[in-house]
Amino acid sequence: MEQLTRYPDRGGDRRLLDEILDEGVVAVLSTVVDGLPWSIPIAYVRAGDLVILHGSTGAGALRHVAAGAPATLTVTHLDGLVVADTAFDHSMNYRSAVLRGPLRVETADAGELLDRFVDALLPGRSAEVRANSRKELAATAVLTLRITDENWIAKARTGGASSSEGGWSGVLPLRKGYARVEPSPGQDLPVPASVLAAVSGR
Amino acid sequence: MEQLTRYPDRGGDRRLLDEILDEGVVAVLSTVVDGLPWSIPIAYVRAGDLVILHGSTGAGALRHVAAGAPATLTVTHLDGLVVADTAFDHSMNYRSAVLRGPLRVETADAGELLDRFVDALLPGRSAEVRANSRKELAATAVLTLRITDENWIAKARTGGASSSEGGWSGVLPLRKGYARVEPSPGQDLPVPASVLAAVSGR
Repeated sequence: MEQLTRYPDRGGDRRLLDEILDEGVVAVLSTVVDGLPWSIPIAYVRAGDLVILHGSTGAGALRHVAAGAPATLTVTHLDGLVVADTAFDHSMNYRSAVLRGPLRVETADAGELLDRFVDALLPGRSAEVRANSRKELAATAVLTLRITDENWIAKARTGGASSSEGGWSGVLPLRKGYARVEPSPGQDLPVPASVLAAVSGR
Repeated sequence: MEQLTRYPDRGGDRRLLDEILDEGVVAVLSTVVDGLPWSIPIAYVRAGDLVILHGSTGAGALRHVAAGAPATLTVTHLDGLVVADTAFDHSMNYRSAVLRGPLRVETADAGELLDRFVDALLPGRSAEVRANSRKELAATAVLTLRITDENWIAKARTGGASSSEGGWSGVLPLRKGYARVEPSPGQDLPVPASVLAAVSGR
């Protein structure tokens, strides 16, 4: 883990990192193109020490800039707005992780990694649908970032608000998780177990 | 607006950009340090054509790398998980914006910008608390990124899921907004109007 100079008390361990990664779905991937920062939002999942990303092979920018280039992957959860009785003491409850690393393009294991991708979002989903076809695999670029002991930082701010001058203070926690299941119109098939698991789990 | 090559139908106009920015609270700020990408989560608000950021002047990294350096600011909203009947067609409903620009360090207008910051998150809050003290202002670095006609891109994916093979499909929308107001323990002061406005508005 990198060292936190400013908020050492907000530095987290690997358990915090995994919690942050596992609760999120979309990260911001940044790299450097022609000396300039380049960023995109991207879905990801964690599987052990691997963070798995994927995109269309038609999305050339992703493939060309991300493979082997230095990259950061940032995941942020806003957990609450912290309201203090002075403007200065207002804050946020949040958890965030920044991982660094070159991305690796996966080819041999692409199908298995994509199964792990969908199963991380919808537990057991890969067994409910047919395997990816050769054509689908060819259209999909799979990239991984390996978590090591030193290529990430995780931070969290939790807790209440300060009321240093006797005024009102409090926290506004954000809603989390999936709101409901919205089946596509006109179908009366049973909701898959993977979907029920995802909705009850998040 | 920059051009979207891959998903031209997902490209958005300025109204979409403002919607994305105004609904968010935390962005990812990325820049380049010694040729490497550098990213942090950071709270922001939009006020007209300005995106306002702030941090502690003690957080030297923010001030030194962000002032004048090329930067991206990325805001992402995951709106729903899109479940298709093939693994390949699973998708996300999302809205995202990436802004580019050098950041400007604001000094003369710092106090006013900080008022706009807190008022954007909690409507009317700056009038409920005392003005920032000179000491508080000195401890706060205020940065802005100006929205122009060409330094941003906004994208959205909305709608349903495809069921190309007759299996179940649907969408899992995410919960949004503040869950409740949690006053600090042991106080019986009335909840400020700004807090009630924020909770009802998001």
